[in-house]
Amino acid sequence: MNLLLLEDGDFVAADRVLLRGRRLKHLHEVHRAETGDSLRVGRLGGLMGRGQLLHLDGDTAELQVELDQSPPAKLPLTLLLALPRPKMLRRVLQTVSAMGVPRLVLLNSYRVEKSFWQTPFLEPLAIREQLILGLEQARDTMLPEVTIEKRFKPFVEDRLPALAAGSLGLVGHPGTYPPCPRAVEGPVTLAIGPEGGWIAYEVEKLQEAGLQPVQLGERILRVETAVSALLARLF
Amino acid sequence: MNLLLLEDGDFVAADRVLLRGRRLKHLHEVHRAETGDSLRVGRLGGLMGRGQLLHLDGDTAELQVELDQSPPAKLPLTLLLALPRPKMLRRVLQTVSAMGVPRLVLLNSYRVEKSFWQTPFLEPLAIREQLILGLEQARDTMLPEVTIEKRFKPFVEDRLPALAAGSLGLVGHPGTYPPCPRAVEGPVTLAIGPEGGWIAYEVEKLQEAGLQPVQLGERILRVETAVSALLARLF
Repeated sequence: MNLLLLEDGDFVAADRVLLRGRRLKHLHEVHRAETGDSLRVGRLGGLMGRGQLLHLDGDTAELQVELDQSPPAKLPLTLLLALPRPKMLRRVLQTVSAMGVPRLVLLNSYRVEKSFWQTPFLEPLAIREQLILGLEQARDTMLPEVTIEKRFKPFVEDRLPALAAGSLGLVGHPGTYPPCPRAVEGPVTLAIGPEGGWIAYEVEKLQEAGLQPVQLGERILRVETAVSALLARLF
Repeated sequence: MNLLLLEDGDFVAADRVLLRGRRLKHLHEVHRAETGDSLRVGRLGGLMGRGQLLHLDGDTAELQVELDQSPPAKLPLTLLLALPRPKMLRRVLQTVSAMGVPRLVLLNSYRVEKSFWQTPFLEPLAIREQLILGLEQARDTMLPEVTIEKRFKPFVEDRLPALAAGSLGLVGHPGTYPPCPRAVEGPVTLAIGPEGGWIAYEVEKLQEAGLQPVQLGERILRVETAVSALLARLF
């Protein structure tokens, strides 16, 4: 964790927090923190700054905090992602959060196995946990907004056209398509398929909603790698 | 696995292979393959093509193969990577192999924990296993060359200048450096630091060897994410 992320419930005064649990353990075991140490902190949904450890023992850590810096800018992006398998989902949520994606839509696709929708990692608290790990990694305080769309067709027909309006709409898809553009200006709506890719019908429907297929070369990348590679190329 | 990778020992005739073990299991459980199916295959270190399943049971699979396509081009890159923690190492090896890095140097750094050098995942066969998973993912047949440099200073002083000669030398490092260039032409030597980054002394030594610091923005990315993001931006 490169940023100690504070939640509203941690605050016992305007500039004072008490920590227990995971973050306390991390302070002890990873930071090997001691009283007097100064750490990078941020308030979830708010500013970032420094925190000074006033007291630290096995039960609690108390910090005095000064929050005066804005979190880093988000990417101008809405990312649609075919629901990855559960283990990959957790890592992708961290990556998406760390890279500064503000809006993520987890979407069904023909090649998403039905069992993936049963995973406990889709529970709101489980999603939030992974997003927070990403924020702590990247030093950000603003949680991405994640929505879940279990039905491809009504989402893509009825809601995607409005969601993508005014943005550059792209579908990552292997094939004889133009290469993914670089260093674009302005907002983007990007759809990334499941392992095995979108089926032709889905690419057609995404095109009808205003998204154009682009490719990243011959190599088939894992979803997590494709996400970071496409974002690094686009922005 | 998007490519069934064949090794010399699998061949029982010039166009015939017998498979057992992991790949046989994968054919059964993931591909749910049946006699007569045609699959993408490649020969490790050689060409790619199609294989037809002549016979498949619980013990072996027999395929007739036709190999007539070149594997995808590699990136013109030598990647120096501070040795990641063991769990990350395995994933990074897959990513490096999948993205087409031909030469990887795993390097010591001040912030590499000494215990990381003890991991069994650094054994040649363990490295090879992860590289092969990356080739199978991306559809490639050419193993990257991996070298291990447990001493930073002699490597960077004595061998790196010759290794980096004639290439664009870059060090990924957070700070007030120029942004990482995009879509470069020609060969690149890129050094990526450990969690927590290179120390100032190391950046200086890498600069003396001809590598210039560049940054990827304010966000601190995990090593695996930084690798795919930097490569996607550079090439």
